[in-house]
Amino acid sequence: MKFDVIKKDSNARAGLLETNRGAIHTPAFMPVGTVGTVKAMSPDELKEIGAEIVLCNTYHLYLRPGHEIVESLGGIHKFMNWDRPILTDSGGFQVFSLSALRKIEEDGVHFKSHLDGSMHFIGPKEAMEIQSSLGSDIAMVLDDCTPYPSSYEYAMNSLFRTIKWAEQCKALQREGQALFGIVQGSLYEALRKKSIEELVDIGFDGYAAGGLSVGEPKEEMHRLIYFTAPLLPSEKPRYLMGIGELGDVLKAVEAGFDMFDCVMPSRNARNGTLFTSRGKISIKREEFKSDRGPLDPDCDCYTCRNYSRGYLRHIFLSKEILSMRLNTIHNLFFYLNFFRNMRKSILESRFSEFKTQWQAIYS
Amino acid sequence: MKFDVIKKDSNARAGLLETNRGAIHTPAFMPVGTVGTVKAMSPDELKEIGAEIVLCNTYHLYLRPGHEIVESLGGIHKFMNWDRPILTDSGGFQVFSLSALRKIEEDGVHFKSHLDGSMHFIGPKEAMEIQSSLGSDIAMVLDDCTPYPSSYEYAMNSLFRTIKWAEQCKALQREGQALFGIVQGSLYEALRKKSIEELVDIGFDGYAAGGLSVGEPKEEMHRLIYFTAPLLPSEKPRYLMGIGELGDVLKAVEAGFDMFDCVMPSRNARNGTLFTSRGKISIKREEFKSDRGPLDPDCDCYTCRNYSRGYLRHIFLSKEILSMRLNTIHNLFFYLNFFRNMRKSILESRFSEFKTQWQAIYS
Repeated sequence: MKFDVIKKDSNARAGLLETNRGAIHTPAFMPVGTVGTVKAMSPDELKEIGAEIVLCNTYHLYLRPGHEIVESLGGIHKFMNWDRPILTDSGGFQVFSLSALRKIEEDGVHFKSHLDGSMHFIGPKEAMEIQSSLGSDIAMVLDDCTPYPSSYEYAMNSLFRTIKWAEQCKALQREGQALFGIVQGSLYEALRKKSIEELVDIGFDGYAAGGLSVGEPKEEMHRLIYFTAPLLPSEKPRYLMGIGELGDVLKAVEAGFDMFDCVMPSRNARNGTLFTSRGKISIKREEFKSDRGPLDPDCDCYTCRNYSRGYLRHIFLSKEILSMRLNTIHNLFFYLNFFRNMRKSILESRFSEFKTQWQAIYS
Repeated sequence: MKFDVIKKDSNARAGLLETNRGAIHTPAFMPVGTVGTVKAMSPDELKEIGAEIVLCNTYHLYLRPGHEIVESLGGIHKFMNWDRPILTDSGGFQVFSLSALRKIEEDGVHFKSHLDGSMHFIGPKEAMEIQSSLGSDIAMVLDDCTPYPSSYEYAMNSLFRTIKWAEQCKALQREGQALFGIVQGSLYEALRKKSIEELVDIGFDGYAAGGLSVGEPKEEMHRLIYFTAPLLPSEKPRYLMGIGELGDVLKAVEAGFDMFDCVMPSRNARNGTLFTSRGKISIKREEFKSDRGPLDPDCDCYTCRNYSRGYLRHIFLSKEILSMRLNTIHNLFFYLNFFRNMRKSILESRFSEFKTQWQAIYS
């Protein structure tokens, strides 16, 4: 894997991440394909809207169908019919957020499946084995996602665990699979800094910020984003995990982050909330009943080229599958297009203008 | 609208129905797009699998969003982004099968919406107005679908109502919209015969058999199919409404029917039951867990070309939208391909062989 920063505009970066399965232009948005499909989308549609990489969730795939099954079916790419790059998370965050019961120990985490209540264990070794079986292009280290709020002492112990696990994961890195480290440290700048120093000592192909957007006030999150990004190695990709509100993305790109993932555009789409160049709209609103116009007159996606708001409202109210499809196409196209335009603004040294323009709409 | 029987093989017919929006090769299968979308499919996908016409339900579209809304959005074709032919039923059958409460009177039917309990009335005039607003290529007369079982007397009175309504519908036929009559008469051959004579006297662009597959024994249904088809005018398309089990279709084509619609392939797909050249399979079966093969080795559809049974099982169990999409693509492709091959067998005077071969699998 090769990464180059093509252009900087203040701290914002336009980069190029090259993998064996294709290039990723950064800042990049990664649609989330939790169990091996980006909900409501086909791989062809993802390509058509310009997705260059998707994220899959190790926790989900480990529980069902099981990583050995995915491996026996030819690996995650063949399994889901997606030949472009795939990033897998380590499962740490989902254990933290989804499992009914979890017990963190020094060597890993015991947890109860949210599907059937069965007990499982994932440590650094298991996290690396699972991701190796899946065969993703970019793997993530197993981290202990520190909850909010946490005392300094708790956060520090949690961080040391993350660091130790990161070392163990690094030792097990599979040939041909990139591995990213994950910065923790809760809201404590000293711990975040310490975290980065330790991870850089170990040495990773990229660095991610975790443990944010876990319930802390937005101002705190923004403070940590601006604090963290500049401390990360400038020659490696910087990934802000799980954060995708556009107002936050603009700040994070300004701070120097390169990669993002978020379920929001796809989840909102299924709930009928759609992103447009004039702000969010709810398609179920009465006013759209006989509206012949497209969702967003400035949008060139398949949905906007072919369907009226009136029709989209009708199939949403009728709970039709096509509604979720067309809405998801639109929202993901909107996001990917937003990222493409953001990158262009960096290349043309007008990111600040871009940010101001969009923050007026998505603050 | 122009119809030609290209070739007869005993009573089985290969025909060509030409409309302003394109040709329909018969025997033809019409996927059902109840509320203005064939569930889980996009219009592009329908074209890719070779659908030449779809059926929409007047009852549903009348209740939601309302035919005036569809008209104000440019008519049903523009509304749903489908530029090929559309047939609309008259709403009669859905009033019969879906509405919570209905009262049939001489001038039409009062019924309660299954959506919100509101009361409505549809008579011949309303049925024609609604279908005219929708702008379908083929409209159906309003019929009184005689329930099973019915006494001879009840069936006769019901039939006379259907005939009277058919006359009234015919008088209101819109320029450029074809209109099909509907044969009723329950299981009574004398009434079916009478029904056909009266309808032919009025004169329609095509003739449909209704009131079958409403609970009667299969043998009775088959008896009526073989009785009815040869009595219908040979120079007009013959449509057997709502019947789509392949074993029944083979008999109906043998009898001389040309057009079919059925929700079964698409509904089964969403439930994980898939048609293959070796019979139906349930994709959720444990045995498919790590099966790398396609659903049907003899199938050339998008799903079979790109996905393993193991993956299809996984996304079905995970209740993913893509599961319903890929399963529906496969089942509708299977059906349309079955019809294409059936037509070919008629053209090549080997329908009987085709029927024997497939009845061994789908009796």
